[in-house]
Amino acid sequence: MKKIKRRTFEIIQAANTHDVPSRIFDIGILILIIINVALVIAETFDISPTTEKVFYYIETVSVIIFTIEYLCRVWTADLLYPNLNGFKSRLKYIFSFIALIDLFAILPFYIPFIIPVDLRVLRMLRIIRLFRIFKLNRYTTALTTIADVFRRKKNQLISSIFVVLLLMIVASVLMYNIESKAQPEVFDNAFSALWWSVATLTTVGYGDIYPITAMGKVLSAIIALLGIGLVAVPTGIISSGFMETIDHQDDEKEYCPYCGKKLK
Amino acid sequence: MKKIKRRTFEIIQAANTHDVPSRIFDIGILILIIINVALVIAETFDISPTTEKVFYYIETVSVIIFTIEYLCRVWTADLLYPNLNGFKSRLKYIFSFIALIDLFAILPFYIPFIIPVDLRVLRMLRIIRLFRIFKLNRYTTALTTIADVFRRKKNQLISSIFVVLLLMIVASVLMYNIESKAQPEVFDNAFSALWWSVATLTTVGYGDIYPITAMGKVLSAIIALLGIGLVAVPTGIISSGFMETIDHQDDEKEYCPYCGKKLK
Amino acid sequence: MKKIKRRTFEIIQAANTHDVPSRIFDIGILILIIINVALVIAETFDISPTTEKVFYYIETVSVIIFTIEYLCRVWTADLLYPNLNGFKSRLKYIFSFIALIDLFAILPFYIPFIIPVDLRVLRMLRIIRLFRIFKLNRYTTALTTIADVFRRKKNQLISSIFVVLLLMIVASVLMYNIESKAQPEVFDNAFSALWWSVATLTTVGYGDIYPITAMGKVLSAIIALLGIGLVAVPTGIISSGFMETIDHQDDEKEYCPYCGKKLK
Amino acid sequence: MKKIKRRTFEIIQAANTHDVPSRIFDIGILILIIINVALVIAETFDISPTTEKVFYYIETVSVIIFTIEYLCRVWTADLLYPNLNGFKSRLKYIFSFIALIDLFAILPFYIPFIIPVDLRVLRMLRIIRLFRIFKLNRYTTALTTIADVFRRKKNQLISSIFVVLLLMIVASVLMYNIESKAQPEVFDNAFSALWWSVATLTTVGYGDIYPITAMGKVLSAIIALLGIGLVAVPTGIISSGFMETIDHQDDEKEYCPYCGKKLK
Repeated sequence: MKKIKRRTFEIIQAANTHDVPSRIFDIGILILIIINVALVIAETFDISPTTEKVFYYIETVSVIIFTIEYLCRVWTADLLYPNLNGFKSRLKYIFSFIALIDLFAILPFYIPFIIPVDLRVLRMLRIIRLFRIFKLNRYTTALTTIADVFRRKKNQLISSIFVVLLLMIVASVLMYNIESKAQPEVFDNAFSALWWSVATLTTVGYGDIYPITAMGKVLSAIIALLGIGLVAVPTGIISSGFMETIDHQDDEKEYCPYCGKKLK
Repeated sequence: MKKIKRRTFEIIQAANTHDVPSRIFDIGILILIIINVALVIAETFDISPTTEKVFYYIETVSVIIFTIEYLCRVWTADLLYPNLNGFKSRLKYIFSFIALIDLFAILPFYIPFIIPVDLRVLRMLRIIRLFRIFKLNRYTTALTTIADVFRRKKNQLISSIFVVLLLMIVASVLMYNIESKAQPEVFDNAFSALWWSVATLTTVGYGDIYPITAMGKVLSAIIALLGIGLVAVPTGIISSGFMETIDHQDDEKEYCPYCGKKLK
Repeated sequence: MKKIKRRTFEIIQAANTHDVPSRIFDIGILILIIINVALVIAETFDISPTTEKVFYYIETVSVIIFTIEYLCRVWTADLLYPNLNGFKSRLKYIFSFIALIDLFAILPFYIPFIIPVDLRVLRMLRIIRLFRIFKLNRYTTALTTIADVFRRKKNQLISSIFVVLLLMIVASVLMYNIESKAQPEVFDNAFSALWWSVATLTTVGYGDIYPITAMGKVLSAIIALLGIGLVAVPTGIISSGFMETIDHQDDEKEYCPYCGKKLK
Repeated sequence: MKKIKRRTFEIIQAANTHDVPSRIFDIGILILIIINVALVIAETFDISPTTEKVFYYIETVSVIIFTIEYLCRVWTADLLYPNLNGFKSRLKYIFSFIALIDLFAILPFYIPFIIPVDLRVLRMLRIIRLFRIFKLNRYTTALTTIADVFRRKKNQLISSIFVVLLLMIVASVLMYNIESKAQPEVFDNAFSALWWSVATLTTVGYGDIYPITAMGKVLSAIIALLGIGLVAVPTGIISSGFMETIDHQDDEKEYCPYCGKKLK
């Protein structure tokens, strides 16, 4: 039993690249995820009831496999966290980010069997499984670096988002007061003006809402130019974050015995 | 009296997190600010006269509280600047950036009582109080860093804005001469062309104004490509500013006695 | 014979700037490439059958010259790779990136003589020869630096593209479910929603598709703001890549015998 | 005479801030330039013949003053370049960038007196004098730094522009072939497709031209995503350029006698 558990753990963990069954398992799950994402997208097209039935069968099989995989992962969680006891390790695993994604991806399928509600919309939550892809490949290190930069620069980024939000609110209240008389249908309330301010600050500019008065155009120009700053500030923060990462990598090099500085 | 003043000062200053009344005061003011912002936005929707009346009552109460808070801050300003005497410290506080914001946020409410003018538009100035949020939380340091970068790179940023403005003026006069014959209604004067140049340089592109002649399209393409530079230059400046910040932080580390270089 | 081969090699290789025939050859080929690109563009306009005939003659002559050049390069490949024998060097050359571009640029012209198919569209592949321009000038070093940055940061860039693609898929499935009832014609399936998500994330915003419901606008605002991150992350990665390049250039400087650090 | 020349030179050169007449001269010229720019813009509005006449008088006076200033600068050029003789120094000055701008700004006014042609359009060249503003203020250093970054990174920037242009040409030829059948009026030739590729790559997206076929949308999505790179690469180059500037400023600091490294 213990041996089976150990083997199951080895297979479902992506660590060893020379372990052929583990490799096959990983690729199989990956293909299943991609099929499910394709299904979610395909379901939005006009499909015949027959096709819909086929889709439902594929989904059912997938969810069963995902459920078995999920249960196996919970079962072998004590091998993942050898320092914890059986219960604690399982609890820790269940509430880990990756396990919660897995759970939310399979749960919407089972709920209608218990409570009779239409959860078709929630069933598309299967697509969040896509994020599992990152666990399967060599890009994990790169992603960790990117996530690390965001984590270290979190406060600065949140602050700049705050400033942007405040700017958006102030700009939209101003714009509403300027434009609502000239375009009462377009700028019908501050929410519409907020929609305009997002489109302008992010420089998306769909063209469904824009000022027509001279004053409104001046304000819009100012906001659009500030939108440049909206790009420049987080870019600057993130750039400096990536630069620090490089410096930290250097820290692992040897040091000069005379001055304690790192050697190149 | 002195004790009351000292206590008032402690409460209205956000410094001490273990001081429960001070915490409650901060959160109370914050909630009041957010309510007022919500009101300013809600007022732009179609509201019944009854709701409007309720809104006005809430606003009145808020402004009274903000006024009391403002007066308390002026009163305790000598504790904020202990080196200055009573009058000087109060004057310094009144003309500080944060106090001016507070003043402009409450003033529009009182003016109609003195001079009979309709200042409904100005009353929305209450929303600028939102910027007070920054004083209340742990993002102050991050914001200071960002503001610091802007301060240090001020001259370079202003210069690049100058270049952009000149480019915009030159481009719009050129575009007016190119397009006004083909689209006399759209490019009716240089101001319209200026509006086009802003939309193009910032890459917003609402789609309400764009060239249709071959020459105009060539100019527009050049301006749009220069718009990339418009993003790249401030971003580069700000990035290098954030990098310097990292370097300056390093400066506080110890130095090697042999070569005077900082130790890592 | 050997002398002629050596001379041919010298002429077709762009190395020596003092070699007049080599210079003339380079410029001649460059002009021929630009003429062919101009032809490909001109062919898209309404042209008379006579003009079309002239275009075809020019194309024929160009392709013959390009073919001769290609064969000469294959012939002299053993001088390019002196360490390899005749066959191996030629094989290596034929499968090099630049030689494949040359081959794909001339092949579509010959295929119709063998298999009777209409390859007019493929004939425009001639324009990929444009990339040859880079081999002919002093910008090669600069381009190598840029390519180098991309190569070194490949994993991080691919990871961020992955995240963006996932975000786009998730956003478009969500948006389809939100907007398809309000705009069944515009958001007719997930593919349309995907088209919206590209236009929003990249901040292009053509204006042919955008949400009209409140929920849809909120999602769109979130995606547009995340689109800022889409710009910030690769910019940060590439910035740090260019910074490393500067650091690496410094590495070639001398080092201090005391502490092993580089001298400035 | 020599004394007058020396004094004239001192006045027209902006160097000495304590020299009151020099200051007045600088500000006077600046105001005149701004008035002329305002005139060029105002002329594009519907103006009465009387106003037009007034505008012409102001322009005439301005051009005369600018001409006198220009001649004074040519006259005193030997004091600007003391190492050169009279003729050489004048020649050098006339062909300097700033002097050419001045010449092009005044020339269009005089040409109609010699050759009877309508140069109304060229007369708006007066606005290029705006660039003189940079010579008059304290932002010169900041601008020099920015210009310096562009100069040092010139090759890399030109290379990336080259790549973008090639990409645009290839993309537009492809797009023309994909979309011309579905939208023969919109994508009527490769030039229209080129206009689309500029709008997409720069993320302006006016919305006057966009693909409607599935294939076209896929290509457009790829080009829009590459457009992100179009922003990221020059931003990265310029960021690293600004970083080098910081490093170079450090070079002026003292050095450690032990290891030859700069002291902080």
